[in-house]
Amino acid sequence: MKKQEALARLHAIDRDLKHLSQVTAILQWDQETYMPPAAVEGRSEQLALLEGIIHEKATSPEIGNLLEEVGSTTANPRGDADLPDIERDFLRVFRKQYDRAVLLPADLVTESARAEGLSQAAWVEARKHNDYKTFMPHLEKMIGYAKKKAECWGFTEHPYDGLLDIHEPGMTEGAIDSVFGPLRTRLSHLVQRIGSKKAPRSDFLAREYPKELQAQFGESVMKDLAYDLSQGRLDISAHPFTTTLGPRDVRITTRYFPTNMLSGLFSIIHETGHALYEMGFADEIRDSSLGDGASMGIHESQSRLWENVVGRSRAFWKGQFPLLRQLFPTQLADVSVDDFYAAVNRVQPSLIRVDADEVTYSLHVILRFELERRLFSGALSVAELPEAWNGMIQEILGVKPDSDANGVLQDVHWSMGAFGYFPSYALGNLYGLQFWDKLKVDIPEAESFIEQRNYGPILQWLRTQVHNHGCRYEPADLVLKITGKPLSAEPFIKYLEQKYGQLYSL
Amino acid sequence: MKKQEALARLHAIDRDLKHLSQVTAILQWDQETYMPPAAVEGRSEQLALLEGIIHEKATSPEIGNLLEEVGSTTANPRGDADLPDIERDFLRVFRKQYDRAVLLPADLVTESARAEGLSQAAWVEARKHNDYKTFMPHLEKMIGYAKKKAECWGFTEHPYDGLLDIHEPGMTEGAIDSVFGPLRTRLSHLVQRIGSKKAPRSDFLAREYPKELQAQFGESVMKDLAYDLSQGRLDISAHPFTTTLGPRDVRITTRYFPTNMLSGLFSIIHETGHALYEMGFADEIRDSSLGDGASMGIHESQSRLWENVVGRSRAFWKGQFPLLRQLFPTQLADVSVDDFYAAVNRVQPSLIRVDADEVTYSLHVILRFELERRLFSGALSVAELPEAWNGMIQEILGVKPDSDANGVLQDVHWSMGAFGYFPSYALGNLYGLQFWDKLKVDIPEAESFIEQRNYGPILQWLRTQVHNHGCRYEPADLVLKITGKPLSAEPFIKYLEQKYGQLYSL
Repeated sequence: MKKQEALARLHAIDRDLKHLSQVTAILQWDQETYMPPAAVEGRSEQLALLEGIIHEKATSPEIGNLLEEVGSTTANPRGDADLPDIERDFLRVFRKQYDRAVLLPADLVTESARAEGLSQAAWVEARKHNDYKTFMPHLEKMIGYAKKKAECWGFTEHPYDGLLDIHEPGMTEGAIDSVFGPLRTRLSHLVQRIGSKKAPRSDFLAREYPKELQAQFGESVMKDLAYDLSQGRLDISAHPFTTTLGPRDVRITTRYFPTNMLSGLFSIIHETGHALYEMGFADEIRDSSLGDGASMGIHESQSRLWENVVGRSRAFWKGQFPLLRQLFPTQLADVSVDDFYAAVNRVQPSLIRVDADEVTYSLHVILRFELERRLFSGALSVAELPEAWNGMIQEILGVKPDSDANGVLQDVHWSMGAFGYFPSYALGNLYGLQFWDKLKVDIPEAESFIEQRNYGPILQWLRTQVHNHGCRYEPADLVLKITGKPLSAEPFIKYLEQKYGQLYSL
Repeated sequence: MKKQEALARLHAIDRDLKHLSQVTAILQWDQETYMPPAAVEGRSEQLALLEGIIHEKATSPEIGNLLEEVGSTTANPRGDADLPDIERDFLRVFRKQYDRAVLLPADLVTESARAEGLSQAAWVEARKHNDYKTFMPHLEKMIGYAKKKAECWGFTEHPYDGLLDIHEPGMTEGAIDSVFGPLRTRLSHLVQRIGSKKAPRSDFLAREYPKELQAQFGESVMKDLAYDLSQGRLDISAHPFTTTLGPRDVRITTRYFPTNMLSGLFSIIHETGHALYEMGFADEIRDSSLGDGASMGIHESQSRLWENVVGRSRAFWKGQFPLLRQLFPTQLADVSVDDFYAAVNRVQPSLIRVDADEVTYSLHVILRFELERRLFSGALSVAELPEAWNGMIQEILGVKPDSDANGVLQDVHWSMGAFGYFPSYALGNLYGLQFWDKLKVDIPEAESFIEQRNYGPILQWLRTQVHNHGCRYEPADLVLKITGKPLSAEPFIKYLEQKYGQLYSL
């Protein structure tokens, strides 16, 4: 077989696998948004069946032969040196997926997918009834499956490293620890200084904001940010998420609370950031494995950049506040744009990660990282987890959960078996501010564009620098390519110190 | 291999195939309800891929070997005589599916599935813009694929018979012609007699009925009819339909027109009838090929029985009208229950099949049957179709379409390649009234139950007599088993003559 034929066949297999994973995403999207409750068991069976089919296709010996044909091996994944760069990037990504897939036995894939469906349903119920005990056996199982998978893939230090690498290629527990250590120290110091100052007023945020009007404003912001509703939609789910259901089908969800209007809105901006990334892959890679985020952390850099760096800036609210006040004239009658900007950035150690402010947010992530690595080293059991959670959140943030629903049960991730995922959220903050510093060099007028609700130049820059490439570059290479520097926490810390120094007159 | 093991393996394959067809149904449901418009091409690719996977599994040589193991052949599909009855029924159905699948080449299955997605999208646009020409090439293709499939399966007279058998096992063009001939004569006579009488007032039906309130009443009726919302939902789509997405997930759709309140409501009742059938399969067959309607006509007997025989009866409106008037006090201020009952049953030859009254409805079906058989015999071309439609509807019903959108483009079926399907709608009327005559013998108080909005005894009778069995019996056998008589148009015609004789004082 000629090399070109082998490559074409690999691309065809890759496309089929991508389409099957989109089919899975459709079933999951439906499960989280519209599916009737009694359908949950049947849906688990369907998802398990699909996982099995995907695993069978992804581990077909044909792929091994084809990869060999183009010179791609585990040691030299990019294949023959005479291939075009884009094909070599594709082979690197595809080879890694293949190696990862062939090491997992089919029955482990099928079983864990079935368990995941049941676990998610149990989590929804447990959270609703604040009943950690009913979720415990599911969590136990999900950790068990994750450990088994990490063992199949192999790892150097301990199983947790094997899981981190899925979400953040090349990352290890040790490497994270060396960034999170100083981050924790500097953030704690900043939180303490802020805590000694008078908090800005935020009473008006808890007034009654009807859900329909919140939705209207959220959709207007989505459109301003150039989220294309002809290839996506906004729905309601228990936990906001972004999902890609097809090459031109990237959907987001949010949830609204009548007396907490910021939660629904910032979830929309956050998920819009993810969606813009997925919508922005170059056409030539959109329908291939290269049409994917470079890592979870890079993905999070996009969502958090739009949510915080843009969405919580003074310039953003100078542009949007007049529109918001038109929708809520009574609720915001006694509020100035500066009041609103200060309230949106109020720092307040709290229980819920997704509602946390920019300064304490990364501390929530560090908490989860600490617990996860103990769960996986065996130093902590599932039964001890709620107590460990409650103890550590008091230590780090000085708050005490009133219930497991607002504590250990608050996130969807563990119910899905997504361990080693949380660190990416904080890494996203770091990547994001490195990108932002470079963007401000290239677009010095960025702030005034934001003030005019003209977000196009920023999106255009991100499209060219980040989105278009998909996962052609690994995170470390991408950061170096864009900024000329390696990963660092400094830009993020400096940004926070400057912004909050001003807001709180430190 | 032991016979029991072969049977167990056949059931496992059957379940996987059923689950995969449910996955397809999920993708189609999403496409009709919530999918963003730009996603249509990607969705076609996904559906085509799934069709290919299903076809590959459904035609695996393993199945042929397993069927042989249990003595099931094309000539003796029910297999070895010592197997339990339910297993022999299963083998009959499964063997027929297998024989049908192995005769289709995989590339025909994949291609036609892809074309179907594009065709449906083109139909939606063509109907919206009243532009038959843009739909024509798609219709041409869908007919081509249907002919190719019929040729693969083989047929005795002409390709149309091969398509009829899919929807109504054992039915032929000749057999339908011999029932539709007299039906057309008797109905035409009835329509003429009614036409000479004064029409009841129906002005109030065209008043403004807000969609939200229509939805509220429709949902209340669904619940009264015991549609279980924990295993289903109601959504909006261009064309109402029922679809089964899982063993406990049967969804329906409708659409609302503010000045035509009957359309949305009777679509709900109709689709609820389909859904109650699907929800009513016995647990032991629910997750197997036996958990399916006995035929499209039997399915239609359920929907049309609830819609017309129950939903358009005087007793039904005696029970429901007070609730309807509570929701629409202004619109119905000058309307009595008898006015409403008469208006709901107003006979008026019209353009749109789904809005047709009980008397003219079957004539719409006969029109489509006549056109379909000519399209498939080659006597009529796709280019000539609109003219043939317009001519024949004038001949049969005396009305002239104002546009193709309200004429040849009104139904979704042809865009999906569902030829030979329409006759089942009229057969459903015939089956339904045969069942109803027997039900009234078994439950003489049926009418007073309906008046009290106590539909449980009727549902219970249908569950026991029809729903529980799924497709264990072929339609002809089922009719004989339940009523003791073969298929006949007499009960339906008598029912109409009596009901409308009274309504129009004939």
